[in-house]
Amino acid sequence: MRIELITIGDELLLGFTIDTNGAHLARELGAVGVEIARRTSVGDRADDIAAAVGDAIRRTGAVITTGGLGPTSDDLTKPAIAALFGRPMRFDPVIYAGLEAMWAARPQWGPMPAANRQQAYVPEGATILENRHGSAPGIWLEDDTGRWVAMLPGVPREMRGMLADHLVPRLTRLVASAPGGDVVVRSRTLRTVGIGESALAGLLGDLADGAGGLPLAYLPGTEGVDLRLTARGLPAAEADERLGGAVALLRARIGRFVYGEGSDDLAALVLAACRERHLTIAVGESCTGGVLGARLTAVPGSSDVFLGGVIAYDNSVKESLLDVPSAEIRAEGSVSEPVARALALGARARIGADVGIGVTGVAGPGGGTPEKPVGTVWIAVAGPGAAAPVAVQTRRTMLVGDRGEIRQRAAQIGLDMVRQAVTTTPA
Amino acid sequence: MRIELITIGDELLLGFTIDTNGAHLARELGAVGVEIARRTSVGDRADDIAAAVGDAIRRTGAVITTGGLGPTSDDLTKPAIAALFGRPMRFDPVIYAGLEAMWAARPQWGPMPAANRQQAYVPEGATILENRHGSAPGIWLEDDTGRWVAMLPGVPREMRGMLADHLVPRLTRLVASAPGGDVVVRSRTLRTVGIGESALAGLLGDLADGAGGLPLAYLPGTEGVDLRLTARGLPAAEADERLGGAVALLRARIGRFVYGEGSDDLAALVLAACRERHLTIAVGESCTGGVLGARLTAVPGSSDVFLGGVIAYDNSVKESLLDVPSAEIRAEGSVSEPVARALALGARARIGADVGIGVTGVAGPGGGTPEKPVGTVWIAVAGPGAAAPVAVQTRRTMLVGDRGEIRQRAAQIGLDMVRQAVTTTPA
Repeated sequence: MRIELITIGDELLLGFTIDTNGAHLARELGAVGVEIARRTSVGDRADDIAAAVGDAIRRTGAVITTGGLGPTSDDLTKPAIAALFGRPMRFDPVIYAGLEAMWAARPQWGPMPAANRQQAYVPEGATILENRHGSAPGIWLEDDTGRWVAMLPGVPREMRGMLADHLVPRLTRLVASAPGGDVVVRSRTLRTVGIGESALAGLLGDLADGAGGLPLAYLPGTEGVDLRLTARGLPAAEADERLGGAVALLRARIGRFVYGEGSDDLAALVLAACRERHLTIAVGESCTGGVLGARLTAVPGSSDVFLGGVIAYDNSVKESLLDVPSAEIRAEGSVSEPVARALALGARARIGADVGIGVTGVAGPGGGTPEKPVGTVWIAVAGPGAAAPVAVQTRRTMLVGDRGEIRQRAAQIGLDMVRQAVTTTPA
Repeated sequence: MRIELITIGDELLLGFTIDTNGAHLARELGAVGVEIARRTSVGDRADDIAAAVGDAIRRTGAVITTGGLGPTSDDLTKPAIAALFGRPMRFDPVIYAGLEAMWAARPQWGPMPAANRQQAYVPEGATILENRHGSAPGIWLEDDTGRWVAMLPGVPREMRGMLADHLVPRLTRLVASAPGGDVVVRSRTLRTVGIGESALAGLLGDLADGAGGLPLAYLPGTEGVDLRLTARGLPAAEADERLGGAVALLRARIGRFVYGEGSDDLAALVLAACRERHLTIAVGESCTGGVLGARLTAVPGSSDVFLGGVIAYDNSVKESLLDVPSAEIRAEGSVSEPVARALALGARARIGADVGIGVTGVAGPGGGTPEKPVGTVWIAVAGPGAAAPVAVQTRRTMLVGDRGEIRQRAAQIGLDMVRQAVTTTPA
C-alpha cells in the first residue's frame, strides 16, 4: 500500500521547526507494509492544504496529515479537508464534553479558552480518533470509493501516541485486506562506523550497488554510514529471505565495521555489552563537553552501567577532578594523546568504574592550528580488566563537519572503541 | 518570490534520516525575501523526481532540489530533470579534471572509483555550481521562459556551503529584479520559556491571534513556546515597521517570559550575560546526564565562561565528587530539593565557579512513584555573588514528554534560572 504524507504548518516552511514526525511515521508504517510515496509540507493556508491533499488523494487515494488541529486560529486542516470532501462541519457534543472534562480535571489550567471549542467541530460523517495524549482529537474521513484522509495532531508526542492507538491497527487491517496485500516493502539497514562511503563501496566491490538483486543505499551521518537494502513488491517471506541473504553477503565483506542493524543505537549496544559483563563506565570529556554522557544517559536504564563523569572543559578541572598532570598539558597541549589517556584513566579511577573514556580535541570553529587543525580529536579508552598498569587504547582522528558534527562523531568513535575493548573481554 | 523545495532520497521517505536541510534553506532564503511555498520529498526514482519537479515548476517556475547528485547508482536527480527540460546529458571535462585533482590531492582515498565519473555528466546548457565542500557539483538549469531548477547536494554541510556560495547571491539578484521584487515576506519570533501555549494566549487576550494586523503563530517545543509574527506582501521598510510595532505590543503583555528573538539560543545568551559580568559557570547533572553541559559547550567560545561539571549519575559520584551528604540522599531521596541544592553548591565549590547549576529528576520511562512521578525535576542555581551563605534558587517542575524531551526541558529551565539569577546582578 502506498500513501502520501502531508505535514501542515507555516513553521515547517519557514524553517523554525525540524520535522521529526515524518521520519517516525515512515518507520512505523513501513513496518506494517505501508510505503510513503511522497511527503509534502504546506503552510497554514486553507487553499494550500486543500490543493496538496487533493493532489495526493488523486495519486494514491490514501493520505495522512499532521498538524493544524489545535485551538489557535492557524489550525485549518479540518475545515479545508472537509470542504475538499464536500462535507459540512458539525459540532460534536461528545468531543466538547471530553474537553470540558479535561479542563475540569486540571484546575491549574484555569477555565477552558473559548478557542478550544473549535476543536469540537468535525467534518460530517468523520470517524473521531480519540486523543489520550492531548486535547485535539484526530479525524478519519473516507469517501464512498474508499479514499481516505487521516488527520493527526502535529505535536510529536501526541502524533506518536495516536499513530500507535489508531492508525497502525487500522492500516494493518487495510493492508491485509487490500488487493496486492500479500506483497510488502521491507528494508534492512547495516550500521557502520569508522569508514567512509567511498571506502565502503570499494570494499564491497561488485556488491557496491546491491546484493541478491536488492538495491543498496548509502546513508552517511554523524553516527557513521548506514547501508540500506530494500525489497519491494515481494511476499513477506520471500522479502525476508532475500534480505537475509543480501545482509550475509555484505557482512562477509565489511562485517568488521558493522556495529548494528536498523535503529540500533551504539550507546545502547555498549551499555548492554557492559551489563552482560558486569562492567561499569565513566567519562572524562573535554571537547565533547557532555555529549558523550548525554548519549549514554539517553538510554533508559543506563544507570546500572554508567556511573557518571567529569566535563573537564577548563584545564583546571582536568587537573583538580581527574588528576591530569599539569606538566603533560604544558608539554603536549590539552589536545594530545597523553591528556586523552589521563582523562580516561582519571575518570576510571576517580569514579571507580571498569572503563574510562577520555576525549579531547578541537571542535572549532576557532582554536585550530597548523599542527592541530579543527577536527583533530584524541580519544582514549582505559580498561576493562584488572591488569596493572591499566590497558589504554588511544586513537587520533581527523573529523569533518561543523562543531556539532565533530562532537557527535567523536562521541560515536569513543563508544565504538569501548565496544571493541569490551567485546574482546569474555562475558 | 515563491519557490518550491524538493528533497530527494529514499532515506527521507523510509524515515532513516531526519531532514534538516529544509529548515536551513527556509531560514536562509526567507532572509533574502524568498518564500518556500511547498516542500516535497520523493524517493530515488526518476519518474517520481520528474513528476514532483514538473508539478512544482508549473506552480511556481522556481525549484530547488537537494540530494541525488552523488556517485552512487541511486543518484538520479540530474538525468531526471534533464529529461523534464528536454536536455541531453553531456560529459563535462572540466568537472572531470576537478574530480581527478581532488583524488590526486588525497592519496589516502586511493584511486577514484569509476562511479564518480558519473558526477561529470551534466544537462546540456546547465550552469555548473562549483562545490568547494565535496565532490558533487551543483547545477542551475533554466529554460527559455526563465523557469529554473537549482540542484544541490543532500549532504547538509555541502548543501549549506553551496547555498551561501551560489544560491543566496543569485536569488538576491533575482528577487531585486523581479516584478513585485519590492515586497517581502518577513517574520519575527519571540522566544518564551516557562509558560504554556494556552496560558500565553490567555495573557495576550485580544492579541492572541495577532497584533497590528499581522497573524501570530504558536510554536511549542522543548525550548519553550515561540511566538511568530509574519508580514507578507509589504515593502521591506513597512514590513519591518509593522513587525516592530507588533513585537512591542506582545512584549508589553508577556515580556517577562521572553528570553530572546529569532534563533537566539538561551545557552548562548546565558554565556554572554555571564561573560559581560566576568562570571563563570559549573554544572552538577544527575538526570540530564550531560545534556546541560552539552548545551553550554555547543556554543563556540564557551570555554571562557563554562569551566566544566560533574555528571553525577550514580549516588556515589554525587557524594565523592560533589560532596552531596549521603544522609540527605537517604532522607529525601536523590530527586529532592536538598540534593539539587547540594549538586549546585558542590559543582560551584569543587570547580571554583561563580554559578553552579544542579539538576536531579525522574526522566523516565521507569523510576516514577506516586510522590515523584516521571517528569518530576528539581533544579537549583547557586550564586552568583560572594555572600555567605551562597544564595541558592530552587525550583520543582513537572515536565511533560518522553525521556529526551524531559531532559531538554530541564536543561532549558536550568539555563533560564541562571539567566534570571545573573541578570539581577549588576554588570
